[in-house]
Amino acid sequence: MKLVHGPVHGTIELDDFAVELVDTPEFQRLRRITQLGFVFLAYPTARHTRFEHSLGTFHLARKLVDHNPDVERGVIYAALLHDLGQYPFSHTLEAIYPRHEENTAWFIKNGEVRDIIEESYSIGEFLRFLKHPVVSGDIDADRMDYLIRDAYYTGVAYGLVDLDRLIRNLHWDGERLVVLEKGIMAAQNLLLARSMMYPTVYLHHVSRIAGAMLVEAVKLEGIPLDEIRLMDEIDLVARLRTSDKPEVRGLIRAIDSRKLYKRVIWSSEPLERDLLEELRRELEAEFGHLALLDYPPKPKFEEKNAFVLVEGKLRRLSDVSPLVRSLFELKDTYWRWGVYAENSEVERVRRLVSRLLVF
Amino acid sequence: MKLVHGPVHGTIELDDFAVELVDTPEFQRLRRITQLGFVFLAYPTARHTRFEHSLGTFHLARKLVDHNPDVERGVIYAALLHDLGQYPFSHTLEAIYPRHEENTAWFIKNGEVRDIIEESYSIGEFLRFLKHPVVSGDIDADRMDYLIRDAYYTGVAYGLVDLDRLIRNLHWDGERLVVLEKGIMAAQNLLLARSMMYPTVYLHHVSRIAGAMLVEAVKLEGIPLDEIRLMDEIDLVARLRTSDKPEVRGLIRAIDSRKLYKRVIWSSEPLERDLLEELRRELEAEFGHLALLDYPPKPKFEEKNAFVLVEGKLRRLSDVSPLVRSLFELKDTYWRWGVYAENSEVERVRRLVSRLLVF
Amino acid sequence: MKLVHGPVHGTIELDDFAVELVDTPEFQRLRRITQLGFVFLAYPTARHTRFEHSLGTFHLARKLVDHNPDVERGVIYAALLHDLGQYPFSHTLEAIYPRHEENTAWFIKNGEVRDIIEESYSIGEFLRFLKHPVVSGDIDADRMDYLIRDAYYTGVAYGLVDLDRLIRNLHWDGERLVVLEKGIMAAQNLLLARSMMYPTVYLHHVSRIAGAMLVEAVKLEGIPLDEIRLMDEIDLVARLRTSDKPEVRGLIRAIDSRKLYKRVIWSSEPLERDLLEELRRELEAEFGHLALLDYPPKPKFEEKNAFVLVEGKLRRLSDVSPLVRSLFELKDTYWRWGVYAENSEVERVRRLVSRLLVF
Amino acid sequence: MKLVHGPVHGTIELDDFAVELVDTPEFQRLRRITQLGFVFLAYPTARHTRFEHSLGTFHLARKLVDHNPDVERGVIYAALLHDLGQYPFSHTLEAIYPRHEENTAWFIKNGEVRDIIEESYSIGEFLRFLKHPVVSGDIDADRMDYLIRDAYYTGVAYGLVDLDRLIRNLHWDGERLVVLEKGIMAAQNLLLARSMMYPTVYLHHVSRIAGAMLVEAVKLEGIPLDEIRLMDEIDLVARLRTSDKPEVRGLIRAIDSRKLYKRVIWSSEPLERDLLEELRRELEAEFGHLALLDYPPKPKFEEKNAFVLVEGKLRRLSDVSPLVRSLFELKDTYWRWGVYAENSEVERVRRLVSRLLVF
Repeated sequence: MKLVHGPVHGTIELDDFAVELVDTPEFQRLRRITQLGFVFLAYPTARHTRFEHSLGTFHLARKLVDHNPDVERGVIYAALLHDLGQYPFSHTLEAIYPRHEENTAWFIKNGEVRDIIEESYSIGEFLRFLKHPVVSGDIDADRMDYLIRDAYYTGVAYGLVDLDRLIRNLHWDGERLVVLEKGIMAAQNLLLARSMMYPTVYLHHVSRIAGAMLVEAVKLEGIPLDEIRLMDEIDLVARLRTSDKPEVRGLIRAIDSRKLYKRVIWSSEPLERDLLEELRRELEAEFGHLALLDYPPKPKFEEKNAFVLVEGKLRRLSDVSPLVRSLFELKDTYWRWGVYAENSEVERVRRLVSRLLVF
Repeated sequence: MKLVHGPVHGTIELDDFAVELVDTPEFQRLRRITQLGFVFLAYPTARHTRFEHSLGTFHLARKLVDHNPDVERGVIYAALLHDLGQYPFSHTLEAIYPRHEENTAWFIKNGEVRDIIEESYSIGEFLRFLKHPVVSGDIDADRMDYLIRDAYYTGVAYGLVDLDRLIRNLHWDGERLVVLEKGIMAAQNLLLARSMMYPTVYLHHVSRIAGAMLVEAVKLEGIPLDEIRLMDEIDLVARLRTSDKPEVRGLIRAIDSRKLYKRVIWSSEPLERDLLEELRRELEAEFGHLALLDYPPKPKFEEKNAFVLVEGKLRRLSDVSPLVRSLFELKDTYWRWGVYAENSEVERVRRLVSRLLVF
Repeated sequence: MKLVHGPVHGTIELDDFAVELVDTPEFQRLRRITQLGFVFLAYPTARHTRFEHSLGTFHLARKLVDHNPDVERGVIYAALLHDLGQYPFSHTLEAIYPRHEENTAWFIKNGEVRDIIEESYSIGEFLRFLKHPVVSGDIDADRMDYLIRDAYYTGVAYGLVDLDRLIRNLHWDGERLVVLEKGIMAAQNLLLARSMMYPTVYLHHVSRIAGAMLVEAVKLEGIPLDEIRLMDEIDLVARLRTSDKPEVRGLIRAIDSRKLYKRVIWSSEPLERDLLEELRRELEAEFGHLALLDYPPKPKFEEKNAFVLVEGKLRRLSDVSPLVRSLFELKDTYWRWGVYAENSEVERVRRLVSRLLVF
Repeated sequence: MKLVHGPVHGTIELDDFAVELVDTPEFQRLRRITQLGFVFLAYPTARHTRFEHSLGTFHLARKLVDHNPDVERGVIYAALLHDLGQYPFSHTLEAIYPRHEENTAWFIKNGEVRDIIEESYSIGEFLRFLKHPVVSGDIDADRMDYLIRDAYYTGVAYGLVDLDRLIRNLHWDGERLVVLEKGIMAAQNLLLARSMMYPTVYLHHVSRIAGAMLVEAVKLEGIPLDEIRLMDEIDLVARLRTSDKPEVRGLIRAIDSRKLYKRVIWSSEPLERDLLEELRRELEAEFGHLALLDYPPKPKFEEKNAFVLVEGKLRRLSDVSPLVRSLFELKDTYWRWGVYAENSEVERVRRLVSRLLVF
């Protein structure tokens, strides 16, 4: 048994099995994957990593399972390993590579963790644990940890949730985690926290611009999946800094010194598919890596589907809470797409965009 | 003017001059220098950097100057830049290179900051600001910030100080910052906090071992000062990972995957100089980089010299406070030197050490 | 000048004028008026008083005025005195006496504060300050303080608001405090916090039942307004404990030992006026003080009217934020009315109620 | 089972037996006994009560017992009831009445709690639990709770202790709680916290003066022990306000409106017994209740006797820690005695004192 101290959950106990998993190189790699990608360019204190988030998720998953002893205990180790497959700078590179969950599965099957897992579980079984509602549901240990943690490290007050009350009122009914009546307020608050973190933290334009620049650099460098999923941030940044391609070196140098591209467009108006493709093509043809189109998918909001037990009946959280319904409406209002350009090209890019789009 | 939000001081205001300084590549480099070196291997959440510490030091220096308008205002920008010269992993490499203050001076004279500084101050003047008691005295903005910040990120409760009360009761008498009577308790508490952070955080053996391993790797790699002072942690780690020397690659791989050397000796008994040198020579001859001697200087405790004003008379803090005197005595009890060895060599190293030393 | 330390705002500075006001008996009386009435029967730690809340409101009002120097400075002293007229157990007794604002005005005109105020302001002027948007508007210093403070003392996480950001982004346009664009998120969060505090803290049924019992005791005791507005909680409770009427003594003894009446009805369905009156009459006739009808007014939500400045245009907060609109809808869902009865009468009361009402 | 939420420990679980004990009038009375007496006249936010402190002590005692299952479980209920016998304004009145522990024993034997206790324990057994090291030792649940709690409510940073680490490292050896090696730092910190709370909070002169005034009023009023131990603060203050003796009414009115006596002497020089008695007699003869001598006993510091286990040997904490030794030296430096006088008598009292004492 090992104790890890930290500010978010106090002392976290790691049992021997967890210690073995933590001691693998793939888990230690998470120490060099920042939790929030380039958010630190907007909130300098947001330097926490997937490593401590993974420990925290494990800790909360164990609490959930302690309150719900019918859940298979193995899910707490799945909680520990759920982010093994994150790319350098976390979600940023999912724009051009498969979702990180696929890499997590790859590590389970091919990493040093495999042998350790197989001491107690079959690989198939363990892969199923990764999809268990405690690890990856509407309201799960992952989300609880990252909201609290991201709030702690950015210093925004929005992410505060009465975790203790929520955990005590999440009941496993054999199929899903159901929010009991006394936990509804805390569950609502979790959704609210998430909803308010979106515009202020997660979708901060500074982080989005730097992310788009990294994506462009990695695309130009052409790193195959089986390389990048093994890289930590040191590997990736060093590779880009020493690229043969001057534009790649320029992009990473700009990120490093926070000389970021500027917003030419920053809009909440969706674009039709054809127009979007045309815009992309023309920008690329005319400006290459000096102008970037960043058109992210709209946020999902699965938590609204969480089940609650009200007066003995299972209902959807969004059915019992007008607040949650309004959060669902609200979610798109924070969505933005953008065109960013190197400072010297801003005016020319603006002209091209104005020619194509009429707002 | 720019606002930066964060958890330790809330909102920090950066005036235009500060923004210009922050926007230089040498200042942005501090984003990639961790505040506490390898402490994160013991406290995984300690991922904060010299960047946010520098902003915090600036913020507190400004508060001190606001309360003491006789102090030249330029010192607040010296507070901002005081850590420009920190090496990758902060103090670790000061074991084999000059103190970071020399690099800070070098950046002031040779960096992009030079031109900005010269808009308002002469370089000579600015270098003097760096030694001002507000920036680098017995009780200064630097120390106030790092204690609070390190406590916040490690989650230890020891670092809590009533900063507001302390700052209100630090009085500039033209020569030094004097603690007024109502601030004595808070000043004592600052010293206490520092004293308690030493054994639990700053001198944690895990961090010391990893540090000794890095020092060895860098020594073997032979990086000259004018290269290393420009490097960030990405540059350094990438360089070591791709070294021509297999032992260098082995050391950094071991740090990366937290397969650290083990303690063969961990002692608070000082060693005589001759014996120390003999031990060093023999370890090196027999084991090369597989056994490391780590014999740090004893900690200083200049704060005990802080001046306090008691009933109209200037006195030393250590003269009015038995607690501070005992902290001074105490400081050496936390000091340790160690011999660390690669796992497979531990027994052989132990035999060599036992032969030389009789405890 | 005097400094007051506390956990919510750190150090609060009281200038000499404020000190004079604080030193009056009517202000000191606020030390014995609990901020949240009987909420402490549900949240035992909620023992804070109108005294510290008044200091906190003063502190925030001063910050608002510091950021908006066009506001007349006198409003900060109105913020300090705004709660002078609160009854013992705060809002509880407003069910049977005039609103506390009238008593505040009475103290301004008749208390020891009068002479102090008149050193600097006319009484008429000062009474106008009490209605200034900084003191009593949609988003004001009062509300900011109590939300943060109530959250701190009850330990619920809901009340956290980025006060600093909000205050920096409240702009006085000569007529009102307008929320600037960068403050909208913080303003929303204030409303959210308030909205979530309602069901969990402010309207907790335990506090409501005890409140209804106190109201009944005071009604039976028949204390005239010009007596009760001078009383603190010691005066009132002692008076009820030594009442000539055994039912008054019984009610206060029950509150003191937390043997509260039980809920017979706890409903969110409004009642028609006639039916309500009939219910009240019958309950009174049959059970006297042993059954209590508690039918509070629906909560208001004036903050939705707060003005925000979006792209140069003044708009209502509820117009720009779907979240705020949904909070407005939501507010009634937390409203409840109840019938409470002494334990031994619960069954009989239930029968009477069932006879009158069909749900 | 019942859950109580609060800021210091989060959620506290009360089992059915604890709920029964809490529901007695003597336990509910603790809601009206402030934890820190008149400290709230110096720190307005210090309004917490013995009620929540008792719940907190119970909570920590249970944690200690959970880690040390050999301890008889009944001690956790003794922790809950340990403060039943506190007087109004806590320790203040122990200057003229027996120590509160005697009243606690009296309630155990004569209160409503008696029958409840006897469901599970004999009274003799339970009285022994009250002296168990978990409840009342060198380092116990009581002290841990009040330090953290008092720091929380006064907002001073001194009281912060890593409770979790301390509790995990307190080991019951059948006779006492022994601090294990990994807990020494946290134990030291507890002592430090206590030591720093003394001068800033517990011995604040404002609280001491008001306390001396209350003691004088109660002495003059002549309230017998069997009355006062049943009183809460409402009973006592109301009694003094309506006293037949004008000087009693004057004293309580002065406390209520914070028109406190002034310090004529405030000294750390001990007085010889004879001189002390002479001073007391002369002050009394000349000024009656208008001048008060406050000569408290020197503080104890039993924690220094706590046992620690270092390298397998039981030692005293003060033997292994120079810091603790210096705290022991330090404790007397915070001790003060005083003579306080009504404002109009200050000069005449000063003359009398000067005549008797030569400093």
